[in-house]
This record gives sequence, structure tokens and C-alpha cells, in this order.
Amino acid sequence: MTETVAIALDAMGGDNAPGMVIKGAHLARKRFPRIRFHIFGDEARMRPLLAKYPKLNHASTVHHTDQVVKADDKPSVALRAGRGSSMRLACDAVRDGLATGVVSAGNTGALMAIAKFVLKTLPGIDRPAIASFFPTIRGESVMLDLGANVECDADNLVQFAVMGNVFARTVLGVLRPTMGLLNVGSEEMKGHEALREASALLRATNLPGEFLGFVEGDDIAKGTVDVVVTDGFTGNIALKSIEGTAKLYSEFLRQTFRSSILAKVGYLLARPALNGLRSRVDPRRYNGAILVGLNGIVVKSHGGTDAFGFANAIGVAMDMALHGAIEKIKDDFAHLTASPPAAPAAQVAGA
Amino acid sequence: MTETVAIALDAMGGDNAPGMVIKGAHLARKRFPRIRFHIFGDEARMRPLLAKYPKLNHASTVHHTDQVVKADDKPSVALRAGRGSSMRLACDAVRDGLATGVVSAGNTGALMAIAKFVLKTLPGIDRPAIASFFPTIRGESVMLDLGANVECDADNLVQFAVMGNVFARTVLGVLRPTMGLLNVGSEEMKGHEALREASALLRATNLPGEFLGFVEGDDIAKGTVDVVVTDGFTGNIALKSIEGTAKLYSEFLRQTFRSSILAKVGYLLARPALNGLRSRVDPRRYNGAILVGLNGIVVKSHGGTDAFGFANAIGVAMDMALHGAIEKIKDDFAHLTASPPAAPAAQVAGA
Repeated sequence: MTETVAIALDAMGGDNAPGMVIKGAHLARKRFPRIRFHIFGDEARMRPLLAKYPKLNHASTVHHTDQVVKADDKPSVALRAGRGSSMRLACDAVRDGLATGVVSAGNTGALMAIAKFVLKTLPGIDRPAIASFFPTIRGESVMLDLGANVECDADNLVQFAVMGNVFARTVLGVLRPTMGLLNVGSEEMKGHEALREASALLRATNLPGEFLGFVEGDDIAKGTVDVVVTDGFTGNIALKSIEGTAKLYSEFLRQTFRSSILAKVGYLLARPALNGLRSRVDPRRYNGAILVGLNGIVVKSHGGTDAFGFANAIGVAMDMALHGAIEKIKDDFAHLTASPPAAPAAQVAGA
Repeated sequence: MTETVAIALDAMGGDNAPGMVIKGAHLARKRFPRIRFHIFGDEARMRPLLAKYPKLNHASTVHHTDQVVKADDKPSVALRAGRGSSMRLACDAVRDGLATGVVSAGNTGALMAIAKFVLKTLPGIDRPAIASFFPTIRGESVMLDLGANVECDADNLVQFAVMGNVFARTVLGVLRPTMGLLNVGSEEMKGHEALREASALLRATNLPGEFLGFVEGDDIAKGTVDVVVTDGFTGNIALKSIEGTAKLYSEFLRQTFRSSILAKVGYLLARPALNGLRSRVDPRRYNGAILVGLNGIVVKSHGGTDAFGFANAIGVAMDMALHGAIEKIKDDFAHLTASPPAAPAAQVAGA
């Protein structure tokens, strides 16, 4: 963890930018003391913030721009009109070798469009995907695609599996990740044609991990597999359904502890343990979605996060950078294309 | 609530049949004292169970069969070979006017195939759907389809909206339900073509309720709308993702209260309140998925539920029966077809 890696930061994306970005960079330095930053944004606003953190200031290069991509800009507009924006310049820095990765809390669609245009997709990958990790009963798992591609064919899903596998190895530290295709459980209808085809392809492919077949919605939280592979429509719905349910439970629990005097006293006694639970499911811990499949590390932070959450998004970029995620994806795809063509669709057992 | 309604029970479906079915019927009589049952199954096994509940015994007619649909029977096999099965005979009882509705905890696919064959779909409905209700921050909502139809076109989705609307009015008691189409949130890609088309159709249709446009995964638990409309693939994944997350939180909470002496004492003090929470999110309270769109009330209970859960599934059938759900669906469709043809696809705002 002592290598020097430079990360480009879009200082102007997110609800509390640039303050949350600068403080997040400061917090990230505690875990990665030798990290360097290229920070893109409004210099006049950033300088007083950086002055509070002399070590960070020393480790950072500020690149001034007064152009920003707005939260409601259309990706096509951000791409055409935003050539001087903090988001675009931060992506350019990765293309130009100034930084290994970029972190932005700005507009997701714009970041995907700009990153794809500037960095291009890796060889063998048709479409980049959005991947993120989350808590499960067994530990942590990763799911992709979370919304970049509404419609996916079998080849897209196979590519997502390969990229998710690398995410699990580099960010979650799983040596030989298990993978599953998200599907419905009823016997008569095992999902779309693309899923059955992808399943056959994955079984026939020599992946650095184990493909366990189809998994269902409840397998996500169970952690049945390390990598849950799905199209962007389904993944987005599943992720947000899970987030909504987590909030519902937190709210129900809050109401429960306020419902009687005894419950309030019980809460006070259990508070340290409950704070541990809160930390365990804290969305800020899981902040940092990767735009995988690009020629560079691109991490999207939640727009509404704080410095702690933004520091974790930087951490995801660093984990991928330090473990050579991009090289691993390239290697895996080189290996994939070298493998024999897929056998005719075999009978696939349900999960 | 004093009308006499007869419900047909498949006594042999589910993990703990027939004991859980008979005891469930007994419990259901507490809420519906004038309910009558036609119970289909192995008479030799049911008689001793019924003898324990003299009032239930008096209100029930037992129809013996030793044939059952097994949990792993393919729907096509159950349909062809299961003509004398308890599930089939219970559905026949609804067709023959002996009962207003049927409740089974057996094989979902088989129940759908048999019920569709025996009862036929209602006029105006191409495909039946599976609907169920669940807790939200605002109260309760219904979602459909939960897995009967993997691929759906715009017409299917519109029909689901109409049927879900009736479910909300009859089972949840909402006078003028709000409806939303489940979609992804990103600006650039507002889901599949079928969703955009269904949205335009729903806006142009004079529904007994309010169509609010697209909703996202987190809107399910928020209760943003009373009726969440989606295809069977997405609905199944969303429902199971939610169930899995609920279990994850329960498990994390259990671990939290065991993690220290203080937490244990806190738990004991807060226990009555926490039991209230447990009851609030008890899956048995939300047991009973409806197979909507058929010429009769068909309720599917979870196979693994107990008597309390099965009684709630009977309650769902009774709520629909007592409030004339089938007639309401027929009326709404008659009204729909009388409305002017849909206007050309209007611009649809995201949720």
C-alpha cells in the first residue's frame, strides 16, 4: 500500500461539492498516505478548503476550470458542450496518463458518456457496465450491470461476468469468485433467451472463478455468489428495491425504539451494538460504483454522499489501481478469446 | 362480513399439508364466522384433524381424492395427468359454482396452468398475472406481475394496472388507488419500449384511479404508489430482492442483540416493541398471492407457511369475494374498451 498512485478528482460533482470532495481526499490519505491527486474545478473555491489540509495540499495538483456538468445535463449535451468541464478534464487526465483513475460524484449518465468517449472500451468489450458491491449475510458481493445497458444480449452478460470477476478479486479480495446469472425461479420459465444462452456460454468458458448457474433475487442478500450478473434494467430495479427495503427497515426500527419508555431505555443500553449495525449497513461504506470495461479506472460516487463516503469511493479506485484491475480484465479477455468456441447450449440446471 | 361465501381448499399443497390447511381454515373462521369450505384431499388424513375443530367440521364438506400435484411436477404434467388431484378438483369447484374462490399452497406453476385451463381468463385479459401486497412506509401496496409472464407487451402491462387497481380497492381498501410503472431512473434511458408505450396508454385511459407515471425500485418500499405494475421477470426479481434484504436485516439485528451483555439487556427491555415490529413485517401477514385475470378467485399461499399464514391467504380470497373483485375487474374492462382509443404517445415525465 505504499506505491504512489495518482487519482483525478472531479471536484465539482455532487450535492456538497467541492467541500465534500476535498475533505474526502483528505480522509482517503489516511488509508493511502502516498496517494496523489489531480483535482479539477473552481480553484478560487478549492484553495481555502485545501489550505485546511496542508499534507493533502502538498500531494495535490489543482487544475482550474469554471465549467461544470450539471446534475440534470443530458449526457449528449455534457459530452458535446462540456469539453472544458471538471468531469471531462478529470477523464482526460486518465487518458493522458496523468492519473490511473478518476472519481466523480456528478451526473452518472454524463460520466458514462464522457468516460466512454475519452477512454474507449477495452478490447473484447462491447459495452461498459456499472458495478457496485453491497453487504450480504456471507460478507460482500458485487452486482453488475446496475443501469448502463437496459437491453443486453448473451455476449454482454458474459463480458459483465468477466469484469465482475475482476472486481471481486481486486476490490473484495476474493481469490476465486463464484458467479451467478440473476433469473426467476419458476421451473416452467427460466427467464429470457439471452440468459439461457449466456449460461451455456459461461459454462463452456474457462473463467478465473466458478459459474454456479442461475441465482434468484433473494440470493443477492444471501451472498450465494460473489458476482451477480444481470442486465442494466434488472440490476437497477434490484439495487433500488434493496436500498428502499433497507431504508424501510431502518425507519421501522427507529419507530419501534420510540414506541414506549421501555423500548427507549432498551435502545440506550443496546446503542453501542446498534451503532455497530448502523455502520455495517452504512451506504457510505459501499459508496463507489465502477464504470467497468473502460481503458482506465472510473468510479462514480453517490451525489448525496459526504466526505467519508467520497473517501470510500476513492478507496475503490485505489484498490483497483493497486491490484492492476484493468490489466487483469485485459488478460482475462485475451484468455477468453483464446479458449475454444462455446459448445452447443447444454442443459442448464436452475439455482 | 356476515354473508356466506364458500371457499375451496386444496388440502394437500404446501410443506405442512394437510395439518396447516385445516388449522388455517379453523383460524380463518374467527374472522369470517359464516365462511364455508369445500376441502379436497385425503379424507383419512383430514378427518382426525377436522375432528379437533367441531365448528369448522360442521362448516366444511370434505371431497376425497388420493391424487396430489407434487411440488416439483411440471405444470404441463400437472395439467394433463392431475385431473383427479386435490388442486384440480378445488379449481373445478370454483368453475362449477360450488365455491367462489380457491386457496392452494401447492406448486405455483401447476396452479396457474390448471386455474387458467379450468377457469379461463376474463374478457379483455390476454394473460393472468400474479399479484401480492407488502408493507411500505406509507402502509401497504400491491405489485404485479410477480412471475407469471416473463415477457410482457404494453397491453399486458395496461391490463395488469387495471387488475392491480381492483386488488388495491378490494383487498387494501383504497378508494382511488395510485398506480406506477416500474422503471429505471437514469435520464437517458427510460426503459424498454413496452414501458413507454404502456405509460402513454395508461395516461390516455380513464382508469378508476390515478396513474403517476414511472416509479423506481426504491419507490416500492416507500409506497409511492398503491399499485406497482411490472413484467413478471422484473417483478419476481424485485420481490425476491426485497424478501432477501428483509431477512438480511432480521439476521443482522439478531446478531446485534447478541453481541454484548448490554445489548442483550436492551433487547429484553425493548422486546415487546420489537415483537410489534416483527409482527409488522411478518411475511405470514402478507401471505396470499392472487392469480388475477381469471374467471374466479384463485389464491396461492406460500408453500412453507403455517396455519396463521394460510388463514391470511384465505382472508385475501374472502376480501376479494366479499367485495366482488371479479365483477369489478369485468366492469373496469368493459369501461376500458368503451373509452376512446389511446391518443398518440404523449411525452411522459419520469417519476
